[in-house]
Amino acid sequence: MSHGHIVVGELFGTAVLILMGGGVCAAVTLKKSKAKDAGWVAIAFGWGFAVMAGAYIANGYSGGQLNPAVTLGVAIKTGVWSTVPYYLIGQFAGAIIGAFLVWVAYMGQFTAHLTDPEVVSGQEADPAGPATGRKAPGGPVLGVFATGPEIRNPVQNLLTEIIGTAVLVLFILTQGMTNGLALNGLGILLTSLLVVGVGLSLGGPTGYAINPARDLGPRIVHSLLPLPGKGGSDWSYAWIPVVGPLAGAAVAGGLYKLAFT
Amino acid sequence: MSHGHIVVGELFGTAVLILMGGGVCAAVTLKKSKAKDAGWVAIAFGWGFAVMAGAYIANGYSGGQLNPAVTLGVAIKTGVWSTVPYYLIGQFAGAIIGAFLVWVAYMGQFTAHLTDPEVVSGQEADPAGPATGRKAPGGPVLGVFATGPEIRNPVQNLLTEIIGTAVLVLFILTQGMTNGLALNGLGILLTSLLVVGVGLSLGGPTGYAINPARDLGPRIVHSLLPLPGKGGSDWSYAWIPVVGPLAGAAVAGGLYKLAFT
Amino acid sequence: MSHGHIVVGELFGTAVLILMGGGVCAAVTLKKSKAKDAGWVAIAFGWGFAVMAGAYIANGYSGGQLNPAVTLGVAIKTGVWSTVPYYLIGQFAGAIIGAFLVWVAYMGQFTAHLTDPEVVSGQEADPAGPATGRKAPGGPVLGVFATGPEIRNPVQNLLTEIIGTAVLVLFILTQGMTNGLALNGLGILLTSLLVVGVGLSLGGPTGYAINPARDLGPRIVHSLLPLPGKGGSDWSYAWIPVVGPLAGAAVAGGLYKLAFT
Amino acid sequence: MSHGHIVVGELFGTAVLILMGGGVCAAVTLKKSKAKDAGWVAIAFGWGFAVMAGAYIANGYSGGQLNPAVTLGVAIKTGVWSTVPYYLIGQFAGAIIGAFLVWVAYMGQFTAHLTDPEVVSGQEADPAGPATGRKAPGGPVLGVFATGPEIRNPVQNLLTEIIGTAVLVLFILTQGMTNGLALNGLGILLTSLLVVGVGLSLGGPTGYAINPARDLGPRIVHSLLPLPGKGGSDWSYAWIPVVGPLAGAAVAGGLYKLAFT
Repeated sequence: MSHGHIVVGELFGTAVLILMGGGVCAAVTLKKSKAKDAGWVAIAFGWGFAVMAGAYIANGYSGGQLNPAVTLGVAIKTGVWSTVPYYLIGQFAGAIIGAFLVWVAYMGQFTAHLTDPEVVSGQEADPAGPATGRKAPGGPVLGVFATGPEIRNPVQNLLTEIIGTAVLVLFILTQGMTNGLALNGLGILLTSLLVVGVGLSLGGPTGYAINPARDLGPRIVHSLLPLPGKGGSDWSYAWIPVVGPLAGAAVAGGLYKLAFT
Repeated sequence: MSHGHIVVGELFGTAVLILMGGGVCAAVTLKKSKAKDAGWVAIAFGWGFAVMAGAYIANGYSGGQLNPAVTLGVAIKTGVWSTVPYYLIGQFAGAIIGAFLVWVAYMGQFTAHLTDPEVVSGQEADPAGPATGRKAPGGPVLGVFATGPEIRNPVQNLLTEIIGTAVLVLFILTQGMTNGLALNGLGILLTSLLVVGVGLSLGGPTGYAINPARDLGPRIVHSLLPLPGKGGSDWSYAWIPVVGPLAGAAVAGGLYKLAFT
Repeated sequence: MSHGHIVVGELFGTAVLILMGGGVCAAVTLKKSKAKDAGWVAIAFGWGFAVMAGAYIANGYSGGQLNPAVTLGVAIKTGVWSTVPYYLIGQFAGAIIGAFLVWVAYMGQFTAHLTDPEVVSGQEADPAGPATGRKAPGGPVLGVFATGPEIRNPVQNLLTEIIGTAVLVLFILTQGMTNGLALNGLGILLTSLLVVGVGLSLGGPTGYAINPARDLGPRIVHSLLPLPGKGGSDWSYAWIPVVGPLAGAAVAGGLYKLAFT
Repeated sequence: MSHGHIVVGELFGTAVLILMGGGVCAAVTLKKSKAKDAGWVAIAFGWGFAVMAGAYIANGYSGGQLNPAVTLGVAIKTGVWSTVPYYLIGQFAGAIIGAFLVWVAYMGQFTAHLTDPEVVSGQEADPAGPATGRKAPGGPVLGVFATGPEIRNPVQNLLTEIIGTAVLVLFILTQGMTNGLALNGLGILLTSLLVVGVGLSLGGPTGYAINPARDLGPRIVHSLLPLPGKGGSDWSYAWIPVVGPLAGAAVAGGLYKLAFT
């Protein structure tokens, strides 16, 4: 794979991932959306199919990693580190583009939500209920872009992100062992369904970033968008969905080296 | 593929697509349906499996495009334009037949809904809640046939349809690059799951037509059906789910040519 | 395939189909079930995976048809009628066994439901809401075994069953044309997902029997089970889920012969 | 397969199975979880994708059985009993590790739940409704780890577990007959979807252990965890989700030998 192909593949793939992943959060949480209050099952499947969409689009050029944690895990497994920077460039650029497109697709919903009397008056401080969990500073609008914990406890939040990401990366690394599914063909479908599962099973405490680009890129876009009343971008939490997933990938890479080779 | 096969395949496939897609909207929104209020997850999976059903039925004859936007994207990619008219004929004819069959399958439900005291008195102006979003002129009955926006803003509505369709078409075009899944075999399953994802993630603002035949054909049927109290067919909006998806396909075709060849 | 293998395969497969299909109806509608009120999405996926389970179990012996309507459609396509009786014997015997096993698995729930004060007093005449649609004579307990219409209109009820079954059978017949998926391998998975789709999209009016054995076999079991208060077995409706699916299969077979050969 | 590989594969796979399966129970039932009250559909898909995750991770080393009942069924079919102890060791060790990781990932949620005034005062004795069915002694916290019946009746509870497990094991044994899917490649995906189906269809009465390791391992962890107010571990019920699944596997193995060979 040429370096250019890697950047292009990861950029397109991650943009679609974040567009669709952020999109389902917008669809379920913002007022004037047909999918309002569709619940956590919608969120989990929405993110899973977002991975499927982005990874298949990227697949021919870059393998469709779309996630610095996956890139780290693959590098630990293969020992190939020279292409890592190109993956990261594509991933972060794509995440920023994708988050911007969420705003384009849902611009009216953002405005309707932020000017809604119930929202402005604080009578709907937690509008979509626990199933969408937007209680972080910035409320549901930030939740469209970035993750936030239900209980703010750095140790637990970090552990939850480590565990969720380790499952994801170990799944990807071990797939390559036995049946050639790896990061291509139907392996992408399986990985996408796994992401649905991680969302259902391990997303409750923190909203399962499990991907530094997925969280940091859109958080930057949130901080830049001219949305009156959008609230803060919760930068004090921002390191956890970066460090946690990378640590989880390192754990998975280490376990793979230790137990599966 | 012979021209006759293309017309027959697209006609049968699109008829099944619209029968099942319109069917799930009827099932979730009309009174006296067992699936009433089953919500947006049901809508999204219902349309995805509708694509799967129609595309596999059509596959042997026409590849199962079932969507003028997909046909446009494939023509841009391949440079083959001579068969396009046959695809369009089959698609629009099939969409009209499918919408008529929705009415046949749900005829009692349409009547029950339109003669329900709550609906007639306007006490149930938004009967199925935001998850089905039938606030367009014509209310839920039109919503069984055609899409409508939650917030009526031609610029945003067009952009949302462009973005949703561009994801769909780019997904289809890039699949062919690397693993031969393209528009056959399990590629149809993947595309169907992608349509579930587009519905979950990008369907909130406009109801995701992402297919001119899917919207225009059934809207014509709505305008012709003798259903007292059905309301208008909202023709002022009808150009958006035609122009938006075609523009989205052109964007996807252009991006494909630019970045993936 | 030997005749014995056909009977055994269809018997086991249809028993599992009805056990799991009736099971999800019991799970969602009866009191003292953990899945009570899980809704139409649960019903539709439950029946789809019931098809998957039964058809894969039967696959090596009989191809996993599990449905007289499918058997009729395949016979019309292939012209092979001599094995049809063996399919039907296995299917009806299996359906009866499966329905009996539903009662075994949920025996306490049946009793709890039928002795519940709210149910007995009629205060919960429609306990699970429209999403489970148990308004036929016999109420929710009959609904675990057999289908019933939301609106009792033989013409529409028949047409809805014809349409739903025609989609199912046409899907199965055309699959064999182009990619060899047919009634084996992953074709069974696709057919199972199609059944999810038919349930979501076309199940609203009648509860989608789309299979004479699925409806008649369990209805017989319902009439025999010693469940005090179970209500009648609604025999006046019983011909529709037999005749409708067979007519739908004939329509699909005819369309296949006409358009796809 | 070497004995070491079997232990390692089953240990990792079962740990992930229980982490994700217990995780979705925690996510849906505990306070301060974003997925609170997401319902039985979330539970069923969560456990299904948990099987998928664990079995693919284990696949290259042990085939991914992750369940003493599956191991028993496979041993009956193949006649190979010498590796059974290694499977069991890995499965029970993995289940214990996985249950511990559920507590790590959700530690704050456990504490928040058990100190919640409504929970403590007993005003929320059945907090998540029938869809999660946590009425066993120990309430929802035990329900994260172990199964419990809605109606406590050993005969029915045993029969329900036997029936559910027999379907699972018969599905796995017969798959190997005809298309080589068996316990590898896409067969794992199919088995995972079957587990979704068993949950939807047969999980209502007892919560579908269908796996002795899945129930006993986490129950031990529940009894050891220092969670004030967690309640008892309901040891009087603990034999049913061990004996029932093993009996179900024996039934499936016997039926397989009798009818499918």
